[in-house]
Amino acid sequence: MTAPYTELTQRLSDLAAIEGALGILQWDQEIVMPSGAAEARGRQIAVLSVLAHEKLTSPELGALLESQQGSKDLDETQTANVREALRDHRRAVRIPAELVRAWGEATVAGHEVWVQARKDNDFHAFQPILTKLVDLARRRAEAVDPHAPAYDVLIDEFEPGMTMARLDPVFDELKAFLVPFIAQVRAAGRPVDTAWRTSHVSVEDQRKAGEAIVRSMGYDFSRGRLDTSVHPFCGGAGPDDVRITTRYKENGFTGSLLGMIHETGHALYEQGRDATVGDQPVSRARSMGIHESQSLLWEKQVGQGRSFWTWHFPKLQQAYPFLAGISLDDFLFGINEVDFTNLIRVDADELTYPLHVILRYEIERDLFSGALPVADLPEAWNAKMRAYLDIVPPQDRNGVLQDVHWSGGLFGYFPSYTLGALYAAQFYQTAVREVPGVPDALAGGQPGPLLDWLRAKIHRPGSRWLTDDLCTRATGRSLDPQAFIGYARQKYSRLYRLA
Amino acid sequence: MTAPYTELTQRLSDLAAIEGALGILQWDQEIVMPSGAAEARGRQIAVLSVLAHEKLTSPELGALLESQQGSKDLDETQTANVREALRDHRRAVRIPAELVRAWGEATVAGHEVWVQARKDNDFHAFQPILTKLVDLARRRAEAVDPHAPAYDVLIDEFEPGMTMARLDPVFDELKAFLVPFIAQVRAAGRPVDTAWRTSHVSVEDQRKAGEAIVRSMGYDFSRGRLDTSVHPFCGGAGPDDVRITTRYKENGFTGSLLGMIHETGHALYEQGRDATVGDQPVSRARSMGIHESQSLLWEKQVGQGRSFWTWHFPKLQQAYPFLAGISLDDFLFGINEVDFTNLIRVDADELTYPLHVILRYEIERDLFSGALPVADLPEAWNAKMRAYLDIVPPQDRNGVLQDVHWSGGLFGYFPSYTLGALYAAQFYQTAVREVPGVPDALAGGQPGPLLDWLRAKIHRPGSRWLTDDLCTRATGRSLDPQAFIGYARQKYSRLYRLA
Repeated sequence: MTAPYTELTQRLSDLAAIEGALGILQWDQEIVMPSGAAEARGRQIAVLSVLAHEKLTSPELGALLESQQGSKDLDETQTANVREALRDHRRAVRIPAELVRAWGEATVAGHEVWVQARKDNDFHAFQPILTKLVDLARRRAEAVDPHAPAYDVLIDEFEPGMTMARLDPVFDELKAFLVPFIAQVRAAGRPVDTAWRTSHVSVEDQRKAGEAIVRSMGYDFSRGRLDTSVHPFCGGAGPDDVRITTRYKENGFTGSLLGMIHETGHALYEQGRDATVGDQPVSRARSMGIHESQSLLWEKQVGQGRSFWTWHFPKLQQAYPFLAGISLDDFLFGINEVDFTNLIRVDADELTYPLHVILRYEIERDLFSGALPVADLPEAWNAKMRAYLDIVPPQDRNGVLQDVHWSGGLFGYFPSYTLGALYAAQFYQTAVREVPGVPDALAGGQPGPLLDWLRAKIHRPGSRWLTDDLCTRATGRSLDPQAFIGYARQKYSRLYRLA
Repeated sequence: MTAPYTELTQRLSDLAAIEGALGILQWDQEIVMPSGAAEARGRQIAVLSVLAHEKLTSPELGALLESQQGSKDLDETQTANVREALRDHRRAVRIPAELVRAWGEATVAGHEVWVQARKDNDFHAFQPILTKLVDLARRRAEAVDPHAPAYDVLIDEFEPGMTMARLDPVFDELKAFLVPFIAQVRAAGRPVDTAWRTSHVSVEDQRKAGEAIVRSMGYDFSRGRLDTSVHPFCGGAGPDDVRITTRYKENGFTGSLLGMIHETGHALYEQGRDATVGDQPVSRARSMGIHESQSLLWEKQVGQGRSFWTWHFPKLQQAYPFLAGISLDDFLFGINEVDFTNLIRVDADELTYPLHVILRYEIERDLFSGALPVADLPEAWNAKMRAYLDIVPPQDRNGVLQDVHWSGGLFGYFPSYTLGALYAAQFYQTAVREVPGVPDALAGGQPGPLLDWLRAKIHRPGSRWLTDDLCTRATGRSLDPQAFIGYARQKYSRLYRLA
């Protein structure tokens, strides 16, 4: 007879295998699938998703999980594994089948309507389905936990344990720094010639330079691939098959390069999962915010920093002759320059990005509390843009209609982006404090000391501890926006020559 | 309430979706998967295979199929669909779980042992696991149908309805023609300079020339891909995602070119399935032999024939300048030349190939009847090679150990290759008789008339009728080796200038 815990891990491993297969089907769809296969692929993904859902919600798995919860026979890791699996199981079983179906239909319809509405710059066309999606999301949240505020339940899906009560003061503190600081930087300005950013670089040259940098960061190509896609992502089928993608703009090589570094940050997290616990939930990434902390740590803290480019810039100058006359200082300014007139979140720089997120967070929060009717979204959006960034979208397509998230029912997801930025700063500063040689190692082309720290403190722990516990064990304190604030103040004061 | 037949098609469609996903996982494994993902991929494939098996053997599906069998409410196509699905279901449920498991383990072990034994040229090392596989195959056959001879049940898995009673006279008739005819051709010989066959052609040039030919044959790239793999195959995920592969030898372009034409023949069959019945069993390829008839019709009847190259050879001469001085006659001789000393089935030419198959068929037949002990296989092999082809393998690795099939328990599969060759000749001759313009159209670069005939007679019918019925409806008669015999006699008499 198989021991209950062993049987449980086998069931979870089967579930992980189906999810891995889904990861490959999705990667294939984006990268290599012939166009005529789209409908059949949708059916394959739907059938496998139902099978995964059946595995996750099976009463047998539920009974095993309940029986093992708090069992004295389990060690700390096993206990955490049961906790994580039970969380997934309960969320899944609590949402009734008719709501799952309605949700699936509404998100498909929502995406279609949004694509057209954005094209037509017509928020009114999007309003009815958005209203429906908000209502369905609220019903989903109530099904999962009728006692908690709906928006807390939605956030918790991506960021377990995170609540408005915790986010409000964090985001307020951040906003209180950023709004006046950005205004100050903007007023200061700095005329630097950054015309080299639009110099022509062939796709093949970009691929070669990018792949060399990805490799140098410690990405294991024997357990992954680098491909081209319209929307860059990190996907695949579990820690031994972590596939990243990028897109190339022949007159904008920095976007692709930093994008590759970003996706490599995600990939290093996945490739660094604790192999001793295999494909179990406890080895998974802790949360979306922690995942984003890994991509942003490498992209922003490292990949837009002086140490990293001390090593890599001379190599890039050799590969791209038009950089020959550019100083490292000017290169660093060029890849960090703040765009004070940008309206689009995905194009935003490091400094303004959090305000785009806070705006969305506040709007979602007020949507789900009932304080903000869906009809008033465009007005609320534009008012906040003016208040936080002193710019107003001339059209809704560059404003409230710009993001894909709401059309697919992704409410509560936005905060993770900025949580990632905050954790990234906090982690990197702690790594440098604990391993002072990290910046010099990066300047010598050695990411090892930093990666070792991340492996030990973030990657291998996976979901062993709750997020706050993970953060405290790694950095000695709970999430604290001051790490990011201090970093941003210092970096951008220097870049913009503030007093 | 859903009608029983509709519910049944939904269940079969779910099964097809899982099989499609498996097709993508396997394609991915061969073509793009990073090496480190092999173990995880094995697990994903195993889990999905179990899920497919559960769907196929589910008692609910069985009850639906039994209830619909012979139902007056169904039309001819629906009746055939139930028949095909019931056949799959019954085969699957009749094999007990412990035998499925033992089979899975033995075939994995068998492959490993065979790889090493072939390397070591050591049949004795392979003998124990081969003995076990034969025994397990016999038990599987008995489970499926205890009243039929085991080998008939094994053949039936790949070639529904085919039996030794039918194959013996067909293969004897073929052998009675081929053995003396090959000896005659060999004795005649013909010295033609074919050094151009080993001229260097870059992979990229081969790919371009090959892709152009594949496209000209009617292969739909919007529902497929052409890639490179160690072992060429036609795979993917159903009729809207039919992926073919080839391999390139820089000093042997003809192999890759004819290989691509072969796989395109398979792919045209899949892409030509009847879309009006979707992914149901009735739209599937009729059998392995009929599938092979489509690849061989295009490769041998068409792609090694004069009409096809009347159009394509001038183009190839433009692409490959070293062909400039070669006549069409000499080119045709070069791609059809018989290699009288070849020991290896997969390298065999059109004329000797059937004898390699008949040898294996006779050995398998005698293995399962008990007339031939496993220990006597090498001796039996070599005796038949001498009798049929007048050559004897100097080593078992070039003889009895050469094929992968037995190591994976594939008994009863070999006959399909030669059934394919026989059907190909019979189909092509009928097409030309019914549509006399076919050869001229091919000579004018137009495969349309031939493809139309195949679509109507073979591709769209799918599994609507049993094989013999399909053949009779298409050609006016049952399987008859005289079509191939007549074709081979005429073609090779001409190539070798026999009187």
